[in-house]
Amino acid sequence: MIMRAVVDINCDMGESFGCYTLGSDAACMPHISSANIACGFHAGDSRTMRETVERAVAAGVSIGAHPGLPDLQGFGRRPMALSPEEVHDIVLHQIGALGAFCKAAGTVVAHVKPHAALSHMAAADIEIARAIARAAASYDPAMLVYSPTGSRIGLAAEAFGLKPVSEVYADRTYQDNGLLTPRSRPDALITDVEQAIDQVGMMVVEGVVISTDGNRVPVLAESVCVHGDGAHAVEFAARLKARLEAKGVTIAAPARRAAVA
Amino acid sequence: MIMRAVVDINCDMGESFGCYTLGSDAACMPHISSANIACGFHAGDSRTMRETVERAVAAGVSIGAHPGLPDLQGFGRRPMALSPEEVHDIVLHQIGALGAFCKAAGTVVAHVKPHAALSHMAAADIEIARAIARAAASYDPAMLVYSPTGSRIGLAAEAFGLKPVSEVYADRTYQDNGLLTPRSRPDALITDVEQAIDQVGMMVVEGVVISTDGNRVPVLAESVCVHGDGAHAVEFAARLKARLEAKGVTIAAPARRAAVA
Amino acid sequence: MIMRAVVDINCDMGESFGCYTLGSDAACMPHISSANIACGFHAGDSRTMRETVERAVAAGVSIGAHPGLPDLQGFGRRPMALSPEEVHDIVLHQIGALGAFCKAAGTVVAHVKPHAALSHMAAADIEIARAIARAAASYDPAMLVYSPTGSRIGLAAEAFGLKPVSEVYADRTYQDNGLLTPRSRPDALITDVEQAIDQVGMMVVEGVVISTDGNRVPVLAESVCVHGDGAHAVEFAARLKARLEAKGVTIAAPARRAAVA
Amino acid sequence: MIMRAVVDINCDMGESFGCYTLGSDAACMPHISSANIACGFHAGDSRTMRETVERAVAAGVSIGAHPGLPDLQGFGRRPMALSPEEVHDIVLHQIGALGAFCKAAGTVVAHVKPHAALSHMAAADIEIARAIARAAASYDPAMLVYSPTGSRIGLAAEAFGLKPVSEVYADRTYQDNGLLTPRSRPDALITDVEQAIDQVGMMVVEGVVISTDGNRVPVLAESVCVHGDGAHAVEFAARLKARLEAKGVTIAAPARRAAVA
Repeated sequence: MIMRAVVDINCDMGESFGCYTLGSDAACMPHISSANIACGFHAGDSRTMRETVERAVAAGVSIGAHPGLPDLQGFGRRPMALSPEEVHDIVLHQIGALGAFCKAAGTVVAHVKPHAALSHMAAADIEIARAIARAAASYDPAMLVYSPTGSRIGLAAEAFGLKPVSEVYADRTYQDNGLLTPRSRPDALITDVEQAIDQVGMMVVEGVVISTDGNRVPVLAESVCVHGDGAHAVEFAARLKARLEAKGVTIAAPARRAAVA
Repeated sequence: MIMRAVVDINCDMGESFGCYTLGSDAACMPHISSANIACGFHAGDSRTMRETVERAVAAGVSIGAHPGLPDLQGFGRRPMALSPEEVHDIVLHQIGALGAFCKAAGTVVAHVKPHAALSHMAAADIEIARAIARAAASYDPAMLVYSPTGSRIGLAAEAFGLKPVSEVYADRTYQDNGLLTPRSRPDALITDVEQAIDQVGMMVVEGVVISTDGNRVPVLAESVCVHGDGAHAVEFAARLKARLEAKGVTIAAPARRAAVA
Repeated sequence: MIMRAVVDINCDMGESFGCYTLGSDAACMPHISSANIACGFHAGDSRTMRETVERAVAAGVSIGAHPGLPDLQGFGRRPMALSPEEVHDIVLHQIGALGAFCKAAGTVVAHVKPHAALSHMAAADIEIARAIARAAASYDPAMLVYSPTGSRIGLAAEAFGLKPVSEVYADRTYQDNGLLTPRSRPDALITDVEQAIDQVGMMVVEGVVISTDGNRVPVLAESVCVHGDGAHAVEFAARLKARLEAKGVTIAAPARRAAVA
Repeated sequence: MIMRAVVDINCDMGESFGCYTLGSDAACMPHISSANIACGFHAGDSRTMRETVERAVAAGVSIGAHPGLPDLQGFGRRPMALSPEEVHDIVLHQIGALGAFCKAAGTVVAHVKPHAALSHMAAADIEIARAIARAAASYDPAMLVYSPTGSRIGLAAEAFGLKPVSEVYADRTYQDNGLLTPRSRPDALITDVEQAIDQVGMMVVEGVVISTDGNRVPVLAESVCVHGDGAHAVEFAARLKARLEAKGVTIAAPARRAAVA
């Protein structure tokens, strides 16, 4: 007998800038339950934030801030030696910027998910992870914090009283220790769509993944990260959602604590 | 017989950026009741916003957003042909960014005062004024909007249900129509400190100003704008505050409506 | 009897930024003789400049600087109130940046063509036009300056001893005075490809254009501006080049004066 | 018997931005022979570059490019994970930008000296050092490259056929191996002005320095780096220059190879 499972599907959104368009936000939106929206530092701008928030609200998609490093040219992918205090300040800045567009659209920033190099820096340095969590907590004690299973970011979130959301990747393989196989290894990626969808189904419904060594490893799949750029990505998101729903899985953003204020 | 008057003293703050320091924020803070804090577009950055907010909270000074054009090099002083929608988006963006630091410090963005060229654009174009007011209203219906006496910005604020705050300048002369004497005229500025302070006292306590033509003209002085850069500016703010208090005037930020939410 | 005519085909290039791709530079390059390369203010960045210069050199395409306003978000399309001196400085800055990549690739910046709002500002204000010409002249007295037929920019260039290059647009109609029909008018654009190509052929070979009032108007077509974004644009450039060559017209960048130094 | 020695005194300049002023460039200029001018990435802007170049030319001071990381907020002090190719591109970009202002002022970029974090990255990673040298060489084979004695930057410069200039610091102590004492050590800085000037004199005239362990260590002092911010800095530069000249030392920028082109 299998319980009715619930899982979130999240996707990075709002990464356009000025006249530069990136991603297939409108096409992807119907197939996800949470959008991680860029906040103007590594991508996104004022108009893009507003439009993306409005689009998410119209689609009933929950909104998260996707703060990144102050490096538009590098798309936030180049690690920078920021102090924890600098990280705190830029994360709080970005959450607030997105929060204004949420407020105007009658919604809230439900979660925070650090982007690219900022996420890697936080995974490697607990002080950076704590700086992100502190910024999120000081903005809203009900804020959810997304991070890969077992990351320092989740621990830091809990330390600040925030609820972490454990995230899995549809197109990545896992090791016996429950962590992602590093991209440097040839078996890091799953390129077969069916296999990727099956893996997600197993992670969500059974709570396990088959590691690269062939073992059943427990994994907490509260949210599945999909990509939004490219026609295949949108198609993949659509198929993933349909398949999970066909298995009786409900696609929904994770629950937040009731706001205190 | 004269009633006990109340007036706000406001000053632009938080205009430093990175390693560049501008203004005498710490020295000026004790002599004002409201700080207009730059929000990172024409000046200011994440750290400067946080530090300035913390400094204002510590001094009991009310906080306002001071949004400007996206032109750090020009300090927001060069008019740019932005559409009303673009203005709305950048103003909402900036209010939100500052708002996050206010939230973290346990306070709120109490008012909005557009900076330099953005202010002039709004004074000249009601659609720009409305865009600013709409952004302010959608962030917080209790938001105060500062603008020079008789400006379109105040009218636009009222149209969106916001309370305008009528602002006077200590170092500028006024015309018979109650508006500032244009800077292009030789008698636009008051350079004598005593005369400047006397004028403010009259505007606040009697509600009139002596125009450049020598007439008593009614003027609504709810807030007095002082400058924060230069040692003389700080000294002037200190003397102005002391003189007004000696006349029985209370220096205090304007009252906000009770928040609806 | 018709003389063998020569004309230049120019196209804006190098407008990508960081991970954002714009235009079809590689596809367009074989069909043009001059590339106007963005210099990092309104579009383009260090890597894009280098790659575009290398691509142009490989294709035997002459290189021009395409300086714009310091407004990446607005793609240099929003007029800004810059002083002539500020314009001079940003234009010289941008020519130099591109010039370094040209130097490294063994070539030179052969021409300057102001972009979008900067071009419109110069067309409307002779002091802005002069500032651009002065910057170009101080970088290289052999610099060519592109501008629409009859524009103030051409006059300013001549005043600084520079050779102006008179540019026509393939997809725009002309008035009896030889100037472009303003975009606000319904007959401003030519949407029929054959008609556009025929018009260019007549302008180049006969030196006239049929105005919107049906008159033959003299026009100096030293360079034809085509657009590089969109598959149709590339196809159009290819057909235009082929047709002109079939008429015996040589496609080549305009000749520069021998460098003095 | 002592030969008449020659040494260069260099100072970072042109670090202002927009309305933000940094340093005492005008006051410092008379006391140096080479200016390292910021190029708009970590500091400086178009106007500041032009004004600083003009000021240097007027004072007979040789000009160098002082390229930095693309991080205005961090003043180029925060290491960023740029690839060697990215470093090459941003350095070439910056040399070219400054070069345009030099060209307009009738002079050239005589040397390159990487700024702050970029310099530290190059000192630690030969590929970064090579990228800087390659950019400098491709701009001008006669370019001088400044770097601390024994740094990888000097080796990389030589590998690209460039002449390195060995730089010493007036206010820093040295170790037995001829390298600077790390700032983490308490005896890294020389705070006594007389002692600092004496050390420079010995390094220049005798070619040795007394290490922190009390030994005479050979050191190649072709250029002395002084700081330009603060009144004491200017006074120090003035005294240093006067003392060296009193010892018969000539203050002059290092000789460049004759340009090949």
